[in-house]
Amino acid sequence: MAPRVGLVLGDPGGIGPELVAKLLATPEIRRRAEILVIGDPWLFAEGQRVAGLAVPVRAVDRPEDARFDGDRPVLLRHDTVAPDEVQPGQASAAGGRSVLRSLERALALAKAGMISAVCFAPLNKHAMHLAGSGFPDELHWFAHQLGHTGPCCELNVLGALWTSRVTSHVALKEVAAGVTRDRVVEAVRLAAGALRRAGVGNPRIAVAALNPHAGDGGIFGREEIELIGPAVADVRGEGVTADGPFPADTIFLKARDGEYDAVVTMYHDQGQVAMKLMGFDRGVTVQGGLPVPITTPAHGTAYDIVGQGRANVEATRQAFLLACRMGEAGPRD
Amino acid sequence: MAPRVGLVLGDPGGIGPELVAKLLATPEIRRRAEILVIGDPWLFAEGQRVAGLAVPVRAVDRPEDARFDGDRPVLLRHDTVAPDEVQPGQASAAGGRSVLRSLERALALAKAGMISAVCFAPLNKHAMHLAGSGFPDELHWFAHQLGHTGPCCELNVLGALWTSRVTSHVALKEVAAGVTRDRVVEAVRLAAGALRRAGVGNPRIAVAALNPHAGDGGIFGREEIELIGPAVADVRGEGVTADGPFPADTIFLKARDGEYDAVVTMYHDQGQVAMKLMGFDRGVTVQGGLPVPITTPAHGTAYDIVGQGRANVEATRQAFLLACRMGEAGPRD
Repeated sequence: MAPRVGLVLGDPGGIGPELVAKLLATPEIRRRAEILVIGDPWLFAEGQRVAGLAVPVRAVDRPEDARFDGDRPVLLRHDTVAPDEVQPGQASAAGGRSVLRSLERALALAKAGMISAVCFAPLNKHAMHLAGSGFPDELHWFAHQLGHTGPCCELNVLGALWTSRVTSHVALKEVAAGVTRDRVVEAVRLAAGALRRAGVGNPRIAVAALNPHAGDGGIFGREEIELIGPAVADVRGEGVTADGPFPADTIFLKARDGEYDAVVTMYHDQGQVAMKLMGFDRGVTVQGGLPVPITTPAHGTAYDIVGQGRANVEATRQAFLLACRMGEAGPRD
Repeated sequence: MAPRVGLVLGDPGGIGPELVAKLLATPEIRRRAEILVIGDPWLFAEGQRVAGLAVPVRAVDRPEDARFDGDRPVLLRHDTVAPDEVQPGQASAAGGRSVLRSLERALALAKAGMISAVCFAPLNKHAMHLAGSGFPDELHWFAHQLGHTGPCCELNVLGALWTSRVTSHVALKEVAAGVTRDRVVEAVRLAAGALRRAGVGNPRIAVAALNPHAGDGGIFGREEIELIGPAVADVRGEGVTADGPFPADTIFLKARDGEYDAVVTMYHDQGQVAMKLMGFDRGVTVQGGLPVPITTPAHGTAYDIVGQGRANVEATRQAFLLACRMGEAGPRD
């Protein structure tokens, strides 16, 4: 059975509407899932105009009226912002509110079992902040909306390679204190769970070290010996195929060569330097650990090229296809 | 005038002798500089045997007898280790002593103005430690040997792209305390000086941030605002073309595209994850800040493939060519 995926247009001042139009202009994409576009009809029309493409959709006012047949997505009309409130190419409170409202609707549909995954075009953290989201990033906003109190973590995906991280948006000086045996275990479990949900039966997971040269036998730091190594042993005891800790500056070479499905990193830039170098235009972000699969392209709203029709759709395509794979398992629990 | 470069065979148990033989088997390389190979004749012969190549050299016992004509390097006989003391493929005290003695000789010749740069095949830190070098890494051993007490820093070079770093072989938890305004200034100056010595007239230098997203306006750390930004202003005031701080996860994309000649990083893995991904087999390490240009391939002794004749010479070739460029200026001071 085809997954049913909710698709959100992203920040109205960014390249999101253009990307959704470009994504849905391809018949194979439209046939991959039952697609429910959630948002403002004028904004979706504007995205098609910028892209220079027309997408055949059937518009409805209520989700229960959605009928999926052939390759025609359904547009669920959800008014969040007026055209004159949006400044293309700028972060604004109105833009932040718009995307939060569309996402709220998508999450409500997911909780009700009416869609099995969510994919959203780029939002802007500053705009969300201006709109008063009240959370440091979208991950924690999503967790709150879904009433999720367990571990959650942003996952980054590039082709077949995933990363999770033990610490994320914190100052570097706070990273070492944030790396605990339990949190490393959680980050491995979370990556393994997401990979299984995406169809990888027995994911092979590499765990990165915290210190240069993995501490070189304890000379430059002992976290590898005292925390990370024991955490790897813990997850292996649970049946997870995990190795490490490995020096961060060579593990991505092995992972790129296909030796591992995921690298669990200890901090943000350890993984992001590598992932952006390997494929800035193809990266996908997964909101990991949540009960609903939620994906988005790894890049941002690209305010500098809004309205020009030259936004690259590849990362959005990858994010959508991953939402489809993760959504095929249906709603969790 | 051709530079005169001292060439050291590296750890005798590693792939160094094979690499030097492969390097010198190429006539264009031999014509690039006046080359003084410094080490044990039996070991150089063994390298040629493993490589399956014969290198035409003229052997001398005293450096003052060296005569450079045509494309024939001179081998300065310097006995450091007996064949039966070396275990191929293993780190040993005898191996560490051997490379330290050859390097001591090379540095003495450089101090005497008899060579203008040094290039050495890979050594092994553990073997150096077994030999009682008394320093955490070769950089500090070199500085001590040369009586250098000013700032020094390992520089990593990949093609036209250089990196220097503010902190190096320290635990990650000590990195933030090691990043000071003065040290950032020093790391920029050091990169700029080395690039100028390598022939880049007005190097363009990008300075990486310490925190994810460059701290996102102070939300995840204030070092960018309080230390790194002011340091960039300091060096600009000295006439250095420097920009930043930039988020670490995107600055390497710009640098790879040629927008900068160097990236000054705040800690080891920030630069090394990127550099190894961009070209593991081509990387060169420069012992930066010292009065003598000293280069080496970025990879190690590769004990696992010793004696097989399949060591890749490309990084050694790059290290040698860089020593030639930096040595063209002649002895400094």
